[in-house]
Amino acid sequence: MRSSNYLLSTLKETPNDAEVVSHQLMLRAGMVRRLASGLYTWLPTGLRVLRKVENIVREEMNKAGAVETLMPVVQPADLWQETGRIDQFGPELLRIKDRHNRSFVLGPTHEEVITDIARKEINSYKQLPLTLYQIQTKFRDEVRPRFGVMRAREFIMKDAYSFHISDECLNETYNKMHQAYCNIFDRIGLEYRPVLADTGSIGGAVSHEFHVLAESGEDDIVFSDGSDYAANIEKAEALAPAGERPAATQALAVVDTPDAHSIEDVCKLLSVDATQTVKTLLVAAEAEKGEAQGVVALVVRGDHTLNEVKAEKIAGVASPLTFANEEQVQAAANCDAGSIGPQGLNCPVIVDRSAAHLADFVCGANVNGQHMTGANWDRDISDYTVADIRNVVEGEPSPCGKGTLSIKRGIEVGHIFQLGTKYAEAMNAGVLNMQGKQQIMTMGCYGIGVSRIVAAAIEQNNDEHGIIWNESIAPFKVSIIPMNMHKSADVKEAAEKIYADLQAAGIEVLFDDRKERPGVMFADSELIGIPHNIIIGDRSLKNGLVEHKLRLTGDKTEVAVADIVAHIKSLLA
Amino acid sequence: MRSSNYLLSTLKETPNDAEVVSHQLMLRAGMVRRLASGLYTWLPTGLRVLRKVENIVREEMNKAGAVETLMPVVQPADLWQETGRIDQFGPELLRIKDRHNRSFVLGPTHEEVITDIARKEINSYKQLPLTLYQIQTKFRDEVRPRFGVMRAREFIMKDAYSFHISDECLNETYNKMHQAYCNIFDRIGLEYRPVLADTGSIGGAVSHEFHVLAESGEDDIVFSDGSDYAANIEKAEALAPAGERPAATQALAVVDTPDAHSIEDVCKLLSVDATQTVKTLLVAAEAEKGEAQGVVALVVRGDHTLNEVKAEKIAGVASPLTFANEEQVQAAANCDAGSIGPQGLNCPVIVDRSAAHLADFVCGANVNGQHMTGANWDRDISDYTVADIRNVVEGEPSPCGKGTLSIKRGIEVGHIFQLGTKYAEAMNAGVLNMQGKQQIMTMGCYGIGVSRIVAAAIEQNNDEHGIIWNESIAPFKVSIIPMNMHKSADVKEAAEKIYADLQAAGIEVLFDDRKERPGVMFADSELIGIPHNIIIGDRSLKNGLVEHKLRLTGDKTEVAVADIVAHIKSLLA
Repeated sequence: MRSSNYLLSTLKETPNDAEVVSHQLMLRAGMVRRLASGLYTWLPTGLRVLRKVENIVREEMNKAGAVETLMPVVQPADLWQETGRIDQFGPELLRIKDRHNRSFVLGPTHEEVITDIARKEINSYKQLPLTLYQIQTKFRDEVRPRFGVMRAREFIMKDAYSFHISDECLNETYNKMHQAYCNIFDRIGLEYRPVLADTGSIGGAVSHEFHVLAESGEDDIVFSDGSDYAANIEKAEALAPAGERPAATQALAVVDTPDAHSIEDVCKLLSVDATQTVKTLLVAAEAEKGEAQGVVALVVRGDHTLNEVKAEKIAGVASPLTFANEEQVQAAANCDAGSIGPQGLNCPVIVDRSAAHLADFVCGANVNGQHMTGANWDRDISDYTVADIRNVVEGEPSPCGKGTLSIKRGIEVGHIFQLGTKYAEAMNAGVLNMQGKQQIMTMGCYGIGVSRIVAAAIEQNNDEHGIIWNESIAPFKVSIIPMNMHKSADVKEAAEKIYADLQAAGIEVLFDDRKERPGVMFADSELIGIPHNIIIGDRSLKNGLVEHKLRLTGDKTEVAVADIVAHIKSLLA
Repeated sequence: MRSSNYLLSTLKETPNDAEVVSHQLMLRAGMVRRLASGLYTWLPTGLRVLRKVENIVREEMNKAGAVETLMPVVQPADLWQETGRIDQFGPELLRIKDRHNRSFVLGPTHEEVITDIARKEINSYKQLPLTLYQIQTKFRDEVRPRFGVMRAREFIMKDAYSFHISDECLNETYNKMHQAYCNIFDRIGLEYRPVLADTGSIGGAVSHEFHVLAESGEDDIVFSDGSDYAANIEKAEALAPAGERPAATQALAVVDTPDAHSIEDVCKLLSVDATQTVKTLLVAAEAEKGEAQGVVALVVRGDHTLNEVKAEKIAGVASPLTFANEEQVQAAANCDAGSIGPQGLNCPVIVDRSAAHLADFVCGANVNGQHMTGANWDRDISDYTVADIRNVVEGEPSPCGKGTLSIKRGIEVGHIFQLGTKYAEAMNAGVLNMQGKQQIMTMGCYGIGVSRIVAAAIEQNNDEHGIIWNESIAPFKVSIIPMNMHKSADVKEAAEKIYADLQAAGIEVLFDDRKERPGVMFADSELIGIPHNIIIGDRSLKNGLVEHKLRLTGDKTEVAVADIVAHIKSLLA
């Protein structure tokens, strides 16, 4: 590709509205442009990378025995009625009406459509197992699209769905897909981790996310240093502290704590450590039909944070988790939110394992401006249940029993699920089994954020000059930078010859034939992150040499003009 | 690919709701399934063909110097406001609101988006010419989707857009694209014709459509037998009859024609030929601001048909063309539609060239149940203008001056346009020209219906057994049909070996390893249209032979087992 025939669209300045480095570099390198909030055009350089990621995903899916299909972006709302997800999904699911006023949605995912296909096309266990996938445009009407293509509204996803007659068979395919995902991320050269995950609105039992480790990640990933345990913090179990709960030694007392509205304020005022306090949060209870909605109290240690995903799975707690409003707080605790305590509440009380292990602790007194000290479970507070409802913290024992936990930030680029019969049952997708009887199929689903991978790869691989691509997904393998070509016939001749030879060898090359200063060409090539740069100048050319510069290390080597193509070939192979 | 690991989904019966052969065969061959009106899922076999078409299109676009991008499916309505097309497009343009109540459209085409990109990214004539394209999902909310993927609502299109500093440069790229389109359709093995075309709602000056010739086509294509003139009937000029208009010989007379409401009725009643009559049609006039909408009379010879595309371009005629309602007819002509004549009308009268060449003709008398005979222009009817407003007919002289015209049906698979400055001007897309001054760019646009090509190819290439694919787009090049493999170890061994060898040679092969009767396997392979079939049976195998059957001709050849892969290779090469 000649630059003169191409749309480079590189930018010198970092755009103001780009917060994370991948977004900044994708704009600067001319990879994407924003059309509207969460909607991006892929310019030529970006699309070249995107297609390479797509192809790696496709190859590994095919290798794993998955078969490619393509479903519509626009889906009939009827199907979402069948599974009930039309109600479960919030406004992220964009609902539309066609010219005949029929209801459709823009597909954020395709479980309904694929299950509809399966129930019509798969009739016998003999056709199973079967894994179908597509690489396709999805739409999620994010309330706050951000970080460029990382959290866009329109994006490219690979979604695969597998169908089985038994859970054993599902498990086998699940493991194959797990391996295929590892192959994909290995080939792209990402530092990533598969982690135990919550199943969210997709549903199912077993689930793993694949996270690319990066500071800008939106997820906390928990690792054990003593095993290969890894989980999304949403899912990581927080163990109860070891040993028996200490015995009560203090008497219960009420103290004035005017103007102390946070745990921090209370600790300072009473000179206690946050680990000796509990905080009590009121959330909406699951409403029985026809009843007014009550509240549930959630109690965690003062230094801990509530894990909302765990909490909303507790029986009796409304999902999605909704914090009580002022009125509900007054009704249940007779005080403001800052002074709630677990004792004497007129609602169910769920206590985290660590909070439940405390003796002589400080808590709100359910009176404004007052707290209690020397509080003890059972003695002072009865009628509560214990559950795991907090986030784990760095340094605590791993729930796997080996090692202690550390936490890193991750970007979710893949998510696989053992769905079981959730969708097949709702949509009555059955087959004849070996015994000739109708049986509901069991399913898996497997997603990869294809466009997000591009951003994630940049988050992990960049420097002050720009992007550093892994060769597997680089937009071009080689750039040719001829210095003052428009003045030197020798440079032009050498550049044209090398360009032709590289192309003949099937190597993707960007030939910078613009009338630009060498500095501009160097900067653009480094910004775009092309792995191999061939610099052609009059001075070296007199000695029959050109320069090869490696983007990754900056290393420069002089190579004979006659050998440069072979040199590049050997480095790529 | 093993059938057991694949979703064949072939059907024995032809589905009732499929009217054209391509739709029937795409359903029967398991290529597509209807999800909702005009929305189709591409099953594995269909997608394999679609991707091959896509790749041929991509390769030829790249060869022609176009650069690939990818724009969003969802477009901000603002951009369509800028060009005014938000009003020009009817309900085919699906309008949607996002969660924040902002207006978007599902993109039926991308002139607005690409022009927005161009005005931001292209600043200098030095960056020109530039041709960008994408292969992408489009949505048009067709009032009556039909013929399967041929006229679907969601479909795959290749759309390219070129930007230039001059019309000469545009013309050059236009010709390159014309050639690229010919290369594409040649490679796919289609019988097609580029034809002069109307520019419709896209706009611009010069335009060609590419039509695949097929009886089921929705367009009439006009050809000259004396030159390479070809045009869509919408665009084909109808010449005036040769020579002077004959002189008037009859006196004007009014005759009673009770119950004669059509030209046919009138001709029978008066024993005249339709070529000696005219019919007068009233359509809505372009309304001046604040005025009530009047009508315009369009007069064509009784045996001719009105060309609506030509008619709506006549100054004073409302676009889109709208026929007058009963009330308007009464107001203008004082009679019912069946008795209108061109004389004494209180509105502009536009007469087709052929009608204007008549003498002593029959026309309506503007009185119910009466016609006029012996009518003559100028003598009896003044105040009219002559224009080309009819469709050409078979056998008339070609407007190119050479040969006579014939008409065939065509399926439009491509359309290229010299847009000029229509979009760039509306959206102020300018660059600095050589003189350092701002200048609006001139543009071309170039569409190919990628998914429609798949259907068009089937319309042209099928027989009673199913589809006959050109090798360039066949879903598989070879099928292996092992007879009774599950009983014969020899057959199984030979089949597995040939399968492995073909795969190793990089040849796409469908290995029918199902426990099915040979007849079912033959039928499926023919239905799907795989070009080469290798039939493996115990009997021939004893003599070291397998059978090669060519789908196109049905020819069978016995080939030594050891030679079959080389044999196939030589046929494919």
